[in-house]
Amino acid sequence: MPETIDTFITHAHLFTMQGDGVGYVPDGAVAVQKGRIAAVGPTPELADRFQPTETIDASGCAVLPGLIDAHMHTPWAVVRGVAQDVSNWMQRALAPYTRHITPAAALAGTQLNVLEALKAGTTTLVDFTKPYPGWAEVFERMGVRARLTPTINAMPPGGMAGWKVGDLYPFDPAVGQQAIDAALAFARDWHGAAAGRITVMLGPQAPDMLPRDQLLQVKRLAASEGLMIHMHVAQGDREIDQMLQRFGQRTPQYLDELGYLDEQLLTVHLTEATDEEAALIAQSGARMALCSGSIGIIDGIVPPARAFREAGGLVALGSDQASGNNCNNIFNEMKLTALFNKIKARDPVVMPAWEVLRMATIEGAQAIGLGSEIGSLENGKQADLILVDLNAPNLSPVLDAPIRNIVPNLVYAASGYEVKTVMVAGRILVRDGQVLTADETAVRAEAQSQAEAAAQRVAADPVHKDMALLAAMQAGQL
Amino acid sequence: MPETIDTFITHAHLFTMQGDGVGYVPDGAVAVQKGRIAAVGPTPELADRFQPTETIDASGCAVLPGLIDAHMHTPWAVVRGVAQDVSNWMQRALAPYTRHITPAAALAGTQLNVLEALKAGTTTLVDFTKPYPGWAEVFERMGVRARLTPTINAMPPGGMAGWKVGDLYPFDPAVGQQAIDAALAFARDWHGAAAGRITVMLGPQAPDMLPRDQLLQVKRLAASEGLMIHMHVAQGDREIDQMLQRFGQRTPQYLDELGYLDEQLLTVHLTEATDEEAALIAQSGARMALCSGSIGIIDGIVPPARAFREAGGLVALGSDQASGNNCNNIFNEMKLTALFNKIKARDPVVMPAWEVLRMATIEGAQAIGLGSEIGSLENGKQADLILVDLNAPNLSPVLDAPIRNIVPNLVYAASGYEVKTVMVAGRILVRDGQVLTADETAVRAEAQSQAEAAAQRVAADPVHKDMALLAAMQAGQL
Repeated sequence: MPETIDTFITHAHLFTMQGDGVGYVPDGAVAVQKGRIAAVGPTPELADRFQPTETIDASGCAVLPGLIDAHMHTPWAVVRGVAQDVSNWMQRALAPYTRHITPAAALAGTQLNVLEALKAGTTTLVDFTKPYPGWAEVFERMGVRARLTPTINAMPPGGMAGWKVGDLYPFDPAVGQQAIDAALAFARDWHGAAAGRITVMLGPQAPDMLPRDQLLQVKRLAASEGLMIHMHVAQGDREIDQMLQRFGQRTPQYLDELGYLDEQLLTVHLTEATDEEAALIAQSGARMALCSGSIGIIDGIVPPARAFREAGGLVALGSDQASGNNCNNIFNEMKLTALFNKIKARDPVVMPAWEVLRMATIEGAQAIGLGSEIGSLENGKQADLILVDLNAPNLSPVLDAPIRNIVPNLVYAASGYEVKTVMVAGRILVRDGQVLTADETAVRAEAQSQAEAAAQRVAADPVHKDMALLAAMQAGQL
Repeated sequence: MPETIDTFITHAHLFTMQGDGVGYVPDGAVAVQKGRIAAVGPTPELADRFQPTETIDASGCAVLPGLIDAHMHTPWAVVRGVAQDVSNWMQRALAPYTRHITPAAALAGTQLNVLEALKAGTTTLVDFTKPYPGWAEVFERMGVRARLTPTINAMPPGGMAGWKVGDLYPFDPAVGQQAIDAALAFARDWHGAAAGRITVMLGPQAPDMLPRDQLLQVKRLAASEGLMIHMHVAQGDREIDQMLQRFGQRTPQYLDELGYLDEQLLTVHLTEATDEEAALIAQSGARMALCSGSIGIIDGIVPPARAFREAGGLVALGSDQASGNNCNNIFNEMKLTALFNKIKARDPVVMPAWEVLRMATIEGAQAIGLGSEIGSLENGKQADLILVDLNAPNLSPVLDAPIRNIVPNLVYAASGYEVKTVMVAGRILVRDGQVLTADETAVRAEAQSQAEAAAQRVAADPVHKDMALLAAMQAGQL
């Protein structure tokens, strides 16, 4: 008797990401039952074993594990594209907007960003933001997998706008304590919610934005609550300058001496880390979120992910934020990661397509601590997967021998628009490119309305006159 | 009385690319009559002046000059993605395919590539290939603007497969002469065809692939026929090595002494040119086609376009070929050009969005010698333009003040899939994303069929066993 299952995906160019490579199965099939993968293999072998409620014919499609975005700031999609092509990005481009992103604007941004990412095949989103009402509910409602990280810092309200580049930031420990308490309460509400689809990480914003004792307090809480820590580390010369002024140490050494470096830590960026510092962090078991597009635009730098991996570290890809990337799309990050690292090394062999595809799937899953649940298509794992239409002109033709061209084309030619179907935990969230769990027109309209209001508040705030891009506006370059 | 016109495009976020910036006109309109632009300006000012046969409401769209791809090898789309992530790309990845691309396969590749580029907003294609029957007719039929360059070299038939890396290539002057004669005949047939939409350039493949006297013969012919020369220059360490072995000089010095450097010359790649050599070429008036994606993948190098522009040179963008880029999409090239150059300079201010948008439009047009006809939206120029849907989630929201975010999002977030409508010489070639001048399904099917046959021929040719990617196939990485 055939086994009853919910969904049977057939005739795919299947990339399971099992083993050390990409785990290709020609004419492959995936059986899904109760949100998990029941079987993976050649369609002819599996066809007789299952009686599905729905069969999805994936002929002409690549089927992959859903992509993992290991570092995002979703609210910023509401002001996409207002901050790039400048020096001192945080102070002279982003900061004037920071104080004017209201909770309603943040919510509109998150909705837009989840929509954008989901359509481009991202199924797991690791988000980092100051919590606002309704934040977690967006992920719950839209059906994606999320690891939510409420920002913890001890910075006085009002943000960085107006502070001079180079000045030591003031700390307000009361602000820090409040943020720690709020994060803990948030974790107790949401860690494991939506049948485990939503989990929480603790997020000290960066070592330069919190007193040492509060940073240690977060570490103790993470251990006692069984949570990972997600933190920006060595994220720019600004941070290193603050660390040297305040603590007399560069960030990696500071964290090492503090006992912060271990496998509970996901370090983000490492922009200013040397190869040696990256290796030190990797060898500790800590993981890296690499945001190639964002750091390329903001700093003109390729972070030391190659050194990190060569030291045995796990690297995930992240899209960071839309005011300075300007998109949240893991296809974009795969391509930029492969290309930037070739250029950095002046060697076309470095970071081939299959390596970055692993960073976006199985290696990324391991890096964010979900390697046993997602990142590959194998029995018992969550049914998080995507169908990519290889009939798109930019992915055609499909060749199988002597060189199979699918993975290189997914990495170097795909845009994310070729994603046809997206499934998370067995539930179809996108079908034929249409999102089923949100009203796309309404999401865009709300983002537009909130964005215009936020931009008006920025324009009315004298601090905006320091923005580096105003000169470009006046010169007719925007 | 209102003036009768063919098409009136209204309510656009209009980027005319006039002046030194991007020439933004809010609520802009373009009037098109008999294939040319009759007027450009604010919709309210123009609305009463014209009585159009068709009105296109461009609300929510950016309207730009059609994008210019200054260097392509369209036949190679038929084997997209079979050659990347390797050293010695030409010999150890591409060459085994070269001898197996039949004229029918080349035709299928060109059709696919023109389709891909057109859908992504490219209206002018500068193509470089060994001519085959039906080549020019693809461009004529699909309605795009083309500058076609038949390859001239003196390389014996059979291609490079089997030659050892480092060996001096043999020359066959009879092959060179035949190619020169064929190119001249092609130019006489096609230069100015399709009401001037199709023009021809003379294309010595590279200075290392032709004897000195034949290179000079091409130069004399170009002058007498009034044609530009389109040539790969300093395109890799392979070329420089050949030049030193054969002529005892690096390419730029050789061309300078030969009297080859002037404004009739479009130099492609300059991969291995120093900043000083790039400046020498720029100061001569010669132009540069920059293929960021291709050279990034093939060589891990960022060519010296910044030095070229700083020396006063004109730079256009090119997508090169799909077996090693792996897409032909000027949105991709804009983004990569901006990002790669920031990284090369370790400076986020380098090559801002508006500069690369100019390279893809007005500066590109000037670089390929068509600056008086295309590249900007202004009275009397050809009506080559595109509508880009800013309602796409990855381009939303649209902000106008204090920072206008449209150009940065077009460069850093757009993929080409947001292109809704494409017009060339006043004729609509793409409407709502659908190509009107080709049967997309048939084009893809023919490419698939020709690709499979070519791949089988490669697999049967013992020379394919030297391919660097075979190891990746065996390791399950493809």
